[in-house]
Amino acid sequence: MSNGTCIRADEGLAFMLRYENIARYENGRVYILDRRIYPAKTEFVECRTHEEVTKAITDMVTQSAGPFTAAAAGMQLAAYECRDLSAIAQKAYLSKAADTISHARPTTVGRMQLVTSGCLKAAEKAIDEGRDTVEAVYGQLISANNHRYGKINKIAEFLVDRFPDGGHIMTQCFGETIVGMMLKVCRERGKDIKLFCPETRPYFQGARLTATVARDMGFDVTVITDNMAAFVMENEGIDVFTCAADAICLDGHVANKVGTFQIAIVAKRFGVPVYITGAPDKGHATRDDIKIEMRDGDFTLQAMGVRTAAEGVKGYYPAFDITPPELITGIVTDIGILSPYELNKYFESGASGEYDIVV
Amino acid sequence: MSNGTCIRADEGLAFMLRYENIARYENGRVYILDRRIYPAKTEFVECRTHEEVTKAITDMVTQSAGPFTAAAAGMQLAAYECRDLSAIAQKAYLSKAADTISHARPTTVGRMQLVTSGCLKAAEKAIDEGRDTVEAVYGQLISANNHRYGKINKIAEFLVDRFPDGGHIMTQCFGETIVGMMLKVCRERGKDIKLFCPETRPYFQGARLTATVARDMGFDVTVITDNMAAFVMENEGIDVFTCAADAICLDGHVANKVGTFQIAIVAKRFGVPVYITGAPDKGHATRDDIKIEMRDGDFTLQAMGVRTAAEGVKGYYPAFDITPPELITGIVTDIGILSPYELNKYFESGASGEYDIVV
Repeated sequence: MSNGTCIRADEGLAFMLRYENIARYENGRVYILDRRIYPAKTEFVECRTHEEVTKAITDMVTQSAGPFTAAAAGMQLAAYECRDLSAIAQKAYLSKAADTISHARPTTVGRMQLVTSGCLKAAEKAIDEGRDTVEAVYGQLISANNHRYGKINKIAEFLVDRFPDGGHIMTQCFGETIVGMMLKVCRERGKDIKLFCPETRPYFQGARLTATVARDMGFDVTVITDNMAAFVMENEGIDVFTCAADAICLDGHVANKVGTFQIAIVAKRFGVPVYITGAPDKGHATRDDIKIEMRDGDFTLQAMGVRTAAEGVKGYYPAFDITPPELITGIVTDIGILSPYELNKYFESGASGEYDIVV
Repeated sequence: MSNGTCIRADEGLAFMLRYENIARYENGRVYILDRRIYPAKTEFVECRTHEEVTKAITDMVTQSAGPFTAAAAGMQLAAYECRDLSAIAQKAYLSKAADTISHARPTTVGRMQLVTSGCLKAAEKAIDEGRDTVEAVYGQLISANNHRYGKINKIAEFLVDRFPDGGHIMTQCFGETIVGMMLKVCRERGKDIKLFCPETRPYFQGARLTATVARDMGFDVTVITDNMAAFVMENEGIDVFTCAADAICLDGHVANKVGTFQIAIVAKRFGVPVYITGAPDKGHATRDDIKIEMRDGDFTLQAMGVRTAAEGVKGYYPAFDITPPELITGIVTDIGILSPYELNKYFESGASGEYDIVV
């Protein structure tokens, strides 16, 4: 397998955003960066079978868009596992593997199937043509990721247009690719922004991941606790608040990591524009289509693995909250910035969403 | 020394609010509950001299009103230390000790002097009358604390009037005595409230202290992360948001633990009343008289002693923020609930503030 044969869209991004660091196949193994402990430790979970890749995804070793790359790497591994079988048996094996990997997490089965079915098709074609299946799946991984990165690059271009030079930008949680692309575009344009990252309890994605990416890419970055957003807007002059979304409803409501709603309320008070990056989701017509996942409340009673509260105290952990359109300045899509009240224009334009990552 | 001779205002309060647990003199030692690690560990810092008591206060072993009790216990210890000296030498020794203890923290010298001067006078009187000085200072401690608790009990009565039975109450940080008194009054009235405590990063006072007090006193208490306030108000029906204050300016601006301002903004959106407990502070005429203490930003880059962010990432730590009067429903004082715009009425009534704890 030679990386040299691929044009890679992740060139120039931070360490943890490069494909081979997110998840990579190598000599019959898949290595997935363990984001649960990054950046305190840079360790890769080693998976010896595609079932172990599936389990790693289930166990949240990687999050955000990481599972899509991990799934494709898992399909490479599956192709390796069945390499000595007959053509028919290989196809059956890979079809079953695709199904297994896609179901790693209940909430992302549909998107994962887009990834694994793309890989499956690439492998089937290679089998028919007598080419190396592992390499064919890798080619598909790069191609699909490039396609997605290309779209996100467009989003980043529109977003960075809204940043003043030297601007103070507040983020929320970890938007993965868009964070890297946004900073890459800033760097290309010589726009020297300063980031303020709320730490994003209970999992600290802002402190651990977003801040590390910004540091790696050479930007001034300050971590704040989640209760400091109002103080920072009042005293540090935030120019833009931006974050990605877990779902953008067609009616302009946005589901994202818990805390987003609160920051948007505060931003409104200070006249700070709120830009949400992503594409409207046809599967979510209105906010009523969003089901907030309530996770194990006990996770809120610890920090970095250390218990905070006494026994007998209850925890509470809504993973997401919903920001209504009246608090959102614009939805930044790959075709431009849309009002949250006119998201139908996105589909009228022929655009198809950032998650159609299978080419 | 016999506790039986004192009428104690802290009867029926949680473990950590009882005087002897906050700080106690015993056989030539002072023991101060180490709130830096409570409730994970219930440990008392042992002080062998009044200078060690002073250092413990400086080192934040106890916070909120804890240092006042610790200071009085330190004066007991000083009285013990000089017990064999002449009357004149004892008075000189105790005067010097009072000065030392009062300067444990630069921001509370004035209030601490009220405590230590009260103890000093009690000891001087005992010396003149040939009574036990250690016991005399202890009597002063109980008397002064009772006076303060009595005032805070009145505040709690007015506050609890605003709680519906079965109400959902959101707090912020740890208000020490008012939290215990509020819950005590609820219990006396049979008002079964449910508490939601934001954890209060970066020090987790809400998760560690407020929640533990509520649990100890038999109330249903849920800890949330600081980014969940808006979600909880939207989905759990918060009836009242209440917190204490570090300073209540005469113009109605309130300085309190960072995050209070943000919760008040969110409360306004949801129509949740905001009640701040305490007394207006003559030393703070307007918000311009509040100087926000900026602490070491690195403290924000860890949680429970575990580093969160990568090296090269900046931290930021304003200890307090300022909530403006338009977000405050009422200031709950010992003479009743006042509009933040009419705080002059407090002094016109002849009231003198909750911190005149020397009787």
